[in-house]
Amino acid sequence: MRRVRITLGYDGTDFIGSQSQPGQRTVQDELERLLDRLTERSGRTAFAGRTDRGVHAVGQVASVDLGWRGSDDALRDAINALAPVDLVVTSVETVADTFHARYDAVEREYRYRVVVDDVPPVLDRRYVWWRRSGLDVERCQDACHRFVGQHAFGTFAGNGKSQSLDATRLERHVTVCEWRERYGGRHHELRIVANGFLPQMVRNIVGAVVRVGTGAASPEWINELIAANDRRVLGEAAPPQGLALWRVGYEDDSDARRDATIAGLLPGEGYGEE
Amino acid sequence: MRRVRITLGYDGTDFIGSQSQPGQRTVQDELERLLDRLTERSGRTAFAGRTDRGVHAVGQVASVDLGWRGSDDALRDAINALAPVDLVVTSVETVADTFHARYDAVEREYRYRVVVDDVPPVLDRRYVWWRRSGLDVERCQDACHRFVGQHAFGTFAGNGKSQSLDATRLERHVTVCEWRERYGGRHHELRIVANGFLPQMVRNIVGAVVRVGTGAASPEWINELIAANDRRVLGEAAPPQGLALWRVGYEDDSDARRDATIAGLLPGEGYGEE
Repeated sequence: MRRVRITLGYDGTDFIGSQSQPGQRTVQDELERLLDRLTERSGRTAFAGRTDRGVHAVGQVASVDLGWRGSDDALRDAINALAPVDLVVTSVETVADTFHARYDAVEREYRYRVVVDDVPPVLDRRYVWWRRSGLDVERCQDACHRFVGQHAFGTFAGNGKSQSLDATRLERHVTVCEWRERYGGRHHELRIVANGFLPQMVRNIVGAVVRVGTGAASPEWINELIAANDRRVLGEAAPPQGLALWRVGYEDDSDARRDATIAGLLPGEGYGEE
Repeated sequence: MRRVRITLGYDGTDFIGSQSQPGQRTVQDELERLLDRLTERSGRTAFAGRTDRGVHAVGQVASVDLGWRGSDDALRDAINALAPVDLVVTSVETVADTFHARYDAVEREYRYRVVVDDVPPVLDRRYVWWRRSGLDVERCQDACHRFVGQHAFGTFAGNGKSQSLDATRLERHVTVCEWRERYGGRHHELRIVANGFLPQMVRNIVGAVVRVGTGAASPEWINELIAANDRRVLGEAAPPQGLALWRVGYEDDSDARRDATIAGLLPGEGYGEE
């Protein structure tokens, strides 16, 4: 047996989520099914981040112990040869027996895309939140910057229905929260990096930022939301299809590796402008 | 009744093609079904270009006579409200009674995308040809430039099985044929503009250019192919999913309109680099 670190991407549209659930199509069950067709497996796969139904990933990380005797790249290629069209393994690496994809992760990066246009996007539709009304990018940026730092993010956890969150575990440290626009305001993207995220945290943050961006709320409202630390004061979360788990970072990752990983994961531009 | 020019895009993955076929899911039948739910229609829709099974479009144009009494934008929005997720109308314009989407078109632009990587792309997979082996961009560009001009394109028409092409109607005028790469050679895009295209012409051209790009054939081979004017000398066409009908041009379109149309149709970048 050897422990491997598997980096994978998926189109979340047709998955019920990343985490195994009996009788449902999940990323974890799909990956384990593929591994079991190829080699022996000891124990379950551990995933770095849990993604909800409809949320995508380009840089999810899983760890697991396998009996595979070939090379890392051969396992990657064998999985991809058997994998369904909406799941791709971008790398397999043999790692120390102590490596754990979730416990050892020191940061996660998510990206969320919004398209503002009179008509829906044609080819990006599965991967963006389409809205008809415009967003003021400076207001969005102002709102975003207020999330940076160490905060209790209870306002941005879950959907407001469950009250089971442990109040002592709501602290997260957001190191990057940026909003960018392109194509004259038609395309918007949130980029957020933190040591960890609460359930639905990114979608709740996007929902609040968009509310500021449309002018329905002031940027200062973000500070009030954070201070409240109570999910019930927030409205609806942004829909799942605009969200992608972009990257998971580990203590020992070199800068070069980190850059290479990002480059390798990039699915690239759609039909973009010159 | 008034004649309208409808600009539409579609994800070709789940269509059998653009042209109506009994008992099959086609773009033309889908569009006419939507129109018939909203208003009266006189005659069939005419499409500017015929796209095959699996080929996408972001700027297809159709013309038809309708009894619709509201505004052009209201019709566009009504169609989009009813349309399936893989079809979008980007504009509706009332035009002269003499306008015909196919006969009046003076140029068509197609784009074809190739991804070269060890692993398949995650989120672009429905819209690119994924290949593992590298392409020499300068060889691809050299090959492309040889298509520009007025030629009989018999070598690049159809799949080589049908011999029913009329040899006197194989002439086309290619005004642009460019090959670009991005992300250090991982992403490639062909852009081709002509007054018209023969069946499967772009996919046959891409197949030949890629053969030159891999080193399996010389750039001069392109000239030999064109001179032969015989489909039987060519190998396989590139697969359909990398291809998109990008734009259709008409005599009276102003430059401003043309630019605006292109901008409006752009589904934009996927998860691109900064």
